[in-house]
Amino acid sequence: MAKKIVHRIYELRSILREIRAAQKTIGFVPTMGYLHEGHLSLIRQAGKDCDFVVISIFVNPLQFGAGEDYAEYPRALSRDAKLAFANGCDLIFAPTVKEMYPQGFATFVEVERLSEHLCGASRPGHFRGVTTVVTKLFNLVEPDHAYFGQKDAQQAFIIKRMVADLNFDITIHILPTVRETDGLAMSSRNTYLNQKERQAAPVLYRSLCAAKEKITQGERDAASLIAYITKLIKQEPLADIDYVNIVDLENLQPCKKISGKALIAVAVRFGSTRLIDNIIVEV
Amino acid sequence: MAKKIVHRIYELRSILREIRAAQKTIGFVPTMGYLHEGHLSLIRQAGKDCDFVVISIFVNPLQFGAGEDYAEYPRALSRDAKLAFANGCDLIFAPTVKEMYPQGFATFVEVERLSEHLCGASRPGHFRGVTTVVTKLFNLVEPDHAYFGQKDAQQAFIIKRMVADLNFDITIHILPTVRETDGLAMSSRNTYLNQKERQAAPVLYRSLCAAKEKITQGERDAASLIAYITKLIKQEPLADIDYVNIVDLENLQPCKKISGKALIAVAVRFGSTRLIDNIIVEV
Repeated sequence: MAKKIVHRIYELRSILREIRAAQKTIGFVPTMGYLHEGHLSLIRQAGKDCDFVVISIFVNPLQFGAGEDYAEYPRALSRDAKLAFANGCDLIFAPTVKEMYPQGFATFVEVERLSEHLCGASRPGHFRGVTTVVTKLFNLVEPDHAYFGQKDAQQAFIIKRMVADLNFDITIHILPTVRETDGLAMSSRNTYLNQKERQAAPVLYRSLCAAKEKITQGERDAASLIAYITKLIKQEPLADIDYVNIVDLENLQPCKKISGKALIAVAVRFGSTRLIDNIIVEV
Repeated sequence: MAKKIVHRIYELRSILREIRAAQKTIGFVPTMGYLHEGHLSLIRQAGKDCDFVVISIFVNPLQFGAGEDYAEYPRALSRDAKLAFANGCDLIFAPTVKEMYPQGFATFVEVERLSEHLCGASRPGHFRGVTTVVTKLFNLVEPDHAYFGQKDAQQAFIIKRMVADLNFDITIHILPTVRETDGLAMSSRNTYLNQKERQAAPVLYRSLCAAKEKITQGERDAASLIAYITKLIKQEPLADIDYVNIVDLENLQPCKKISGKALIAVAVRFGSTRLIDNIIVEV
């Protein structure tokens, strides 16, 4: 079947019905478009695992708060299509907002507790928007495997919880963050940065790595580590910290002492651009 | 395949995988058990429409509030199984609470607006419990068709909205309320009534029919109709009204004048037993 972009739900369903009837396995990568190497690594992995790879490109208004960058979020469908198809994508679903949220829409999916901290605290309603749209996309695509990047770690763990709780018959894969050579996590939002901000931004990953080094040396106290990361980031005058936090990987609740697996996560503004990054540590 | 009761999710999935591989269509009737003729009419219809009929029997704690009848709700699995199998059911899924809500469960599905009035106002959290468990059951069974009774009209319309909003590929059927010869809507909760309460209970349907007659005669004012129904029910000393309301069928919001399709719904306590009933009118 020729690689294709569809905008309507009925077109998507009709193609996927044939794919399933042919007993092919389906891999799915939901995206907001403006694809970078992080997305492409997910698409390539889906191609390795599955017979047919679907990606969605949809800037989901439900996961943006008032005053956030919904309107400015970069969009480039034909550029994205070339990249996706060249990396093993078979079908792109790029619906309109009206197709996804017609008049009268009233249903929301929410994962409690895991959404409380980190970006959930900074962006009220954000994860409700994410889990609602991902539920819709899962029901539309009915994939066997779905792929998410660790860069959005809280999102990925919330979706894993949702899939288990709501009994979706889908295997969730969380793939490593892809970084620029200077360590900056790839993000569609990096395009917002001016030259000085771009030069400053690697301080996020540098600070996370420095914290990891401290843990290797024996530090276990979360407050000390948070203070250490905060100090390092503040050395960069353009960086305006939203949060620095350390949470247990199981329940995404803040931990006092690091034991088992923990997520160290930061959100920092450079000008009006909010960037996030994280690492997982295990002791 | 022999008719069977399964309690575990992996058993259900393994049987249904075979059914789907054989290209059979699946009909689904979610229930809380203690089956009566209302449930059986849904099961029989599913058998007419589909190749394979699954019912679930699960008294869902999430849809009961504090002080409600979760503990007392009647349970009779082997009796239910005989009735279900005799009426065309092929497979019963009867999970434990732990199987449905394991430790760490945190995900909820909510339909806004449609849940505001009627039972949604009297039973906070009730419909959230319903839509969450039905989402889980839909993902577990992946039916082509699912069947609900009009007796729980608000529930049925909320689920229809949820299915559209979350893009479940399932056709929802709402079947007429099945009644005793004296008009009382069949309900598993009727078993709670003592003899005097049972004799009093038909006042619900009698009052609804009398209101319908008024509408046929030209009455359109919702407040007058509500007052009329209230007066009729209050003539029955054992009846303790929870609500009498008239809502637009599209959005389940109270209407002032009846136009188009409206739902007239009542909830009344007889002793500690809360009964509901409704009719749909169209002008």
